[in-house]
Amino acid sequence: MCAMLVGVMSMRPVCVIGLGLIGGSLLRDLHAKGWPVFGFNRSPSAVKQACDEGFDASSCLEDTLQRAEREGALIVLATPMPAIPSMLDAVMEHAPSCGITDVVSVKAEVYSLVCERGLQDRYVGGHPMAGTANSGWEAAHEGLFQGAAWVVTFDQAAEDPEGVSEQWVGLWRDVATVASAVGAEVIPARVGVHDAAVARISHLPHVLAEALAIVGDNGGALALSLAAGSFRDGTRVAGTVPSLVRAMCETNNVALLAALDETIDLLVDARANLAGEESSVEELVDAGYRSRVRYEARAGEARGGASTGGSNRPVLRVKPGAPKWVSQLEQAEALGARVDVF
Amino acid sequence: MCAMLVGVMSMRPVCVIGLGLIGGSLLRDLHAKGWPVFGFNRSPSAVKQACDEGFDASSCLEDTLQRAEREGALIVLATPMPAIPSMLDAVMEHAPSCGITDVVSVKAEVYSLVCERGLQDRYVGGHPMAGTANSGWEAAHEGLFQGAAWVVTFDQAAEDPEGVSEQWVGLWRDVATVASAVGAEVIPARVGVHDAAVARISHLPHVLAEALAIVGDNGGALALSLAAGSFRDGTRVAGTVPSLVRAMCETNNVALLAALDETIDLLVDARANLAGEESSVEELVDAGYRSRVRYEARAGEARGGASTGGSNRPVLRVKPGAPKWVSQLEQAEALGARVDVF
Repeated sequence: MCAMLVGVMSMRPVCVIGLGLIGGSLLRDLHAKGWPVFGFNRSPSAVKQACDEGFDASSCLEDTLQRAEREGALIVLATPMPAIPSMLDAVMEHAPSCGITDVVSVKAEVYSLVCERGLQDRYVGGHPMAGTANSGWEAAHEGLFQGAAWVVTFDQAAEDPEGVSEQWVGLWRDVATVASAVGAEVIPARVGVHDAAVARISHLPHVLAEALAIVGDNGGALALSLAAGSFRDGTRVAGTVPSLVRAMCETNNVALLAALDETIDLLVDARANLAGEESSVEELVDAGYRSRVRYEARAGEARGGASTGGSNRPVLRVKPGAPKWVSQLEQAEALGARVDVF
Repeated sequence: MCAMLVGVMSMRPVCVIGLGLIGGSLLRDLHAKGWPVFGFNRSPSAVKQACDEGFDASSCLEDTLQRAEREGALIVLATPMPAIPSMLDAVMEHAPSCGITDVVSVKAEVYSLVCERGLQDRYVGGHPMAGTANSGWEAAHEGLFQGAAWVVTFDQAAEDPEGVSEQWVGLWRDVATVASAVGAEVIPARVGVHDAAVARISHLPHVLAEALAIVGDNGGALALSLAAGSFRDGTRVAGTVPSLVRAMCETNNVALLAALDETIDLLVDARANLAGEESSVEELVDAGYRSRVRYEARAGEARGGASTGGSNRPVLRVKPGAPKWVSQLEQAEALGARVDVF
């Protein structure tokens, strides 16, 4: 219980529900840093593997949540989206006072489930922007979050900056602290703003990769034989398990529709210009090149691999609960800036 | 002149016109293998660099082509598409009996320029499927073609299998031999079939990357800040110099339009399904996943890097000029197979 006493002050124990790629990697990273952490997974074989490797894991949800309650742990919901409602219900029953975060890749839908249950004062949403192409405990590994963006939501505070509780401010700090502890960069964003952004840079890339894979394949054996780097990279995420892609896209359908409509408009215009008398794709290609250059300038070198430190993102120093800290979060959201919590 | 005497039998000298990424890399590779090779580049500074490194290069086109004629060289046109007409004219004037190949990424347009000039009996088209993101002599390097597909066209023979000259058969063998010598895999294809295939797996990926880059960028600072692997890989080729992308796409507009129309149809259908009552992208995602898996199965491991040997492509052994060799080429084209020339 020593760990817990320390944890209350600075290293609150973390309880990870779901030990797939994200949850499992979080368990590994926190464990490696000596952080008090334990986890639940539905699959007894994954739990056995984890325990054999020296991790603290259980396949009994009730026991795990009751322990979280006893130890005052931060609960991280790391299951796929479809399991979130039942997990929230279980948390209400077995861990009625714990703070809750999650790692689901869409945030408005989760927030709505949270609000339906009146849990918003105990909830801060999270989304680490890290790999999805492989899944399961076996894909989990240390260092997955190094340099990655980890969105931390703040709707509860944005809606009522003055009325937000001390408990919630402490929870926000805890979530940001855990994300930073595993090497991620904390980017604040409200759930709707987050969903609109990821529709463009995560869900749309999946949709386009699927379409490209199909049209290439329609070209038959010769086309696939000639496919080189541009096709390989452009279709890479079409290799993601279909159920994961569907869960992301369908849960974020409104924002994805907007991004998809913009894309279809661009392609229809390009088609018209290409079929026209001048047969030109100048407009699309010049604009696309400029956009990619802007992205590269922002991404810097750090985004390519996982091991280099720091990114080109602007940084804001934020003290949770201090006057105007919510305005700072809104400013960071607009800039895509990361925050250093002090 | 010793080299030439040997060359006539097995190592015909190669004259590379244009020392950019492709032409320069070909010069380097052939030189490294002791092959008699010399080149022309319009830029005296690139020529000086090449000569300083011990290569045989000149910035005088006339001299270079006259030397090619004297030495019975195979001429490789490695200039961008817009320069091809004037280069063909120069070859007619200064190297009236040399065999000609090229490395342009679209083939019907080049073949049409060749036929306009009555050069088809001296021409075999080529297209190495190797990197385009960087350009110029400075980007050229040894090993670029290792394991890459190198399309070699055979329209002249397909149109009239019995009537094709011995000279042309020898030229086809020479082009295939040079491609193999630098580690590439020879894939036979007729110009129209080639162009339809590359529209799907090379030109379409560029168009989609441009559109994705723009739509992501439209999401502003937060979207670019959150962009991770799927956006990075999906937009990578939007970083290609716009003039190169335009040249590829616009020269191959008819085939690209067909591929683009298929893509737009898929996206419009997906949009309708996503906006519908069930809000599902199942159809697109399941089909895209199956297509990507098929591609991965064909690509094998070899396609990822440049240094591993062999690919998963089927192989046909072909003896140029032997009975039914043209049928074998057609069979290889349908299978996306590589041919071993003996």
